[in-house]
Amino acid sequence: MDNAQTLADPVVMVETAPGQGPFLFVCEHASNIFPERFGTLGLTDKQRQAHIAWDPGALGLARGLLSRLGGAFVAAKVSRLIYDCNRPPHSPGAMVGRSEMYDIPGNASLSAEARLERTEAIYVPFCSALHGEIARRLAVGLLPVIVTVHSFTPTWFGAPRDVELGVIHDADPSLAREVLAAARSRTGLKAELNAPYSAADGVTHSLRLHAVPYGLPNVMLEIRNDLIATPEAEEAMADTLAPVLSAALAALAPPPARSAT
Amino acid sequence: MDNAQTLADPVVMVETAPGQGPFLFVCEHASNIFPERFGTLGLTDKQRQAHIAWDPGALGLARGLLSRLGGAFVAAKVSRLIYDCNRPPHSPGAMVGRSEMYDIPGNASLSAEARLERTEAIYVPFCSALHGEIARRLAVGLLPVIVTVHSFTPTWFGAPRDVELGVIHDADPSLAREVLAAARSRTGLKAELNAPYSAADGVTHSLRLHAVPYGLPNVMLEIRNDLIATPEAEEAMADTLAPVLSAALAALAPPPARSAT
Repeated sequence: MDNAQTLADPVVMVETAPGQGPFLFVCEHASNIFPERFGTLGLTDKQRQAHIAWDPGALGLARGLLSRLGGAFVAAKVSRLIYDCNRPPHSPGAMVGRSEMYDIPGNASLSAEARLERTEAIYVPFCSALHGEIARRLAVGLLPVIVTVHSFTPTWFGAPRDVELGVIHDADPSLAREVLAAARSRTGLKAELNAPYSAADGVTHSLRLHAVPYGLPNVMLEIRNDLIATPEAEEAMADTLAPVLSAALAALAPPPARSAT
Repeated sequence: MDNAQTLADPVVMVETAPGQGPFLFVCEHASNIFPERFGTLGLTDKQRQAHIAWDPGALGLARGLLSRLGGAFVAAKVSRLIYDCNRPPHSPGAMVGRSEMYDIPGNASLSAEARLERTEAIYVPFCSALHGEIARRLAVGLLPVIVTVHSFTPTWFGAPRDVELGVIHDADPSLAREVLAAARSRTGLKAELNAPYSAADGVTHSLRLHAVPYGLPNVMLEIRNDLIATPEAEEAMADTLAPVLSAALAALAPPPARSAT
């Protein structure tokens, strides 16, 4: 499978911590890499470093949580503006023509062929890698806990955002509720449920596709990116959130009965 | 990708009809092939040809529907007794130790390593192939209609079964209801909803994993296998069911709004 590994390598990375932790972290917006094959979409260097291209701090935070809690993470190595791995291929959000106040020239009037090329090159291998990690754990009797890790900009269309930690769920709110309760009791973060986004905004695609069908505990975390703007801040946030996740998972006990006939 | 194709070839087959039909047929139990790598599980030739090893007639029927309706099918090329691609890896049903009245010696007390090996060799590439077919269609603006095609034995634990066509749904019953109505009005088949199995028996895993998260129209068909016991009978059943599926899909109009933000 060396060939497949090499083919997948440019668009998705998988890292596993020593030992068997239950957490499987997912970073769909980990990277602002624009592979040469797809070009820079007509964006300036500054635009390609801005939040529209990726979720700054999310990968560092996910790595910090991995080192504290064990498990693994799966992260995209391509900018969300090339393909947003947290959106299905038929969604306008998969390859956006406009993000916040910015037009994305290279995504204007994309042909069906171009959409297909990006879907095959990025979304399909990303989903396969994540699904494979889940399936392998299930095969040996482990029930992975899916945590998608995102960051959001403190200012949106000129308006400041007060929320610091958003805890978002799809069809199964059980872990999200426990994470919210633990964050409020154990940290000073201003934490909100389903803010600044919710499933109605289409942000829970990965949870819906990979966690819900298997009945896996799952939650999406959104951290305001000014709180994880440096490697030291990412580490500090990982120190804050690791015990929150541990406590939330413990509070889910007794584990709900899951159908696996 | 020639290498990946060769690697996938032994366990999953994909066939596409000329033109663009909306249907994507899925046959998880198409084959009673026991690859040398996994052996015969201690079963006799007769047992490996019986319904416990596969769904006789399902592949021929799916091919017949494909030739009449267009689209594609994805089918497993390995016996369900090695790995049942319609079950998740943590399900006892994925690698059963007993099926109906038969013990499966090669599946008794399978180690975690053996479960992992089969999951990686069969379930993961099967899911990847099916997911890829769906993603590619979504990327170019097509909304595939997922139809899983199965057959069931006319006698179960010695008792005869009267139902001839089972129409089974997971979370979204809309297409199943239309198929049932069309089958009852257009054919002489004794058709029942959620018989002889239902989602509660775990038989809708493929629908739940691949269709429901994308909001795709979906249904599972179960045909009593004495009605599709010869190539001629498979063709005749395809003649009967193709217009049922067409009418059912047409009756779904106007298409439900599907969230794809």
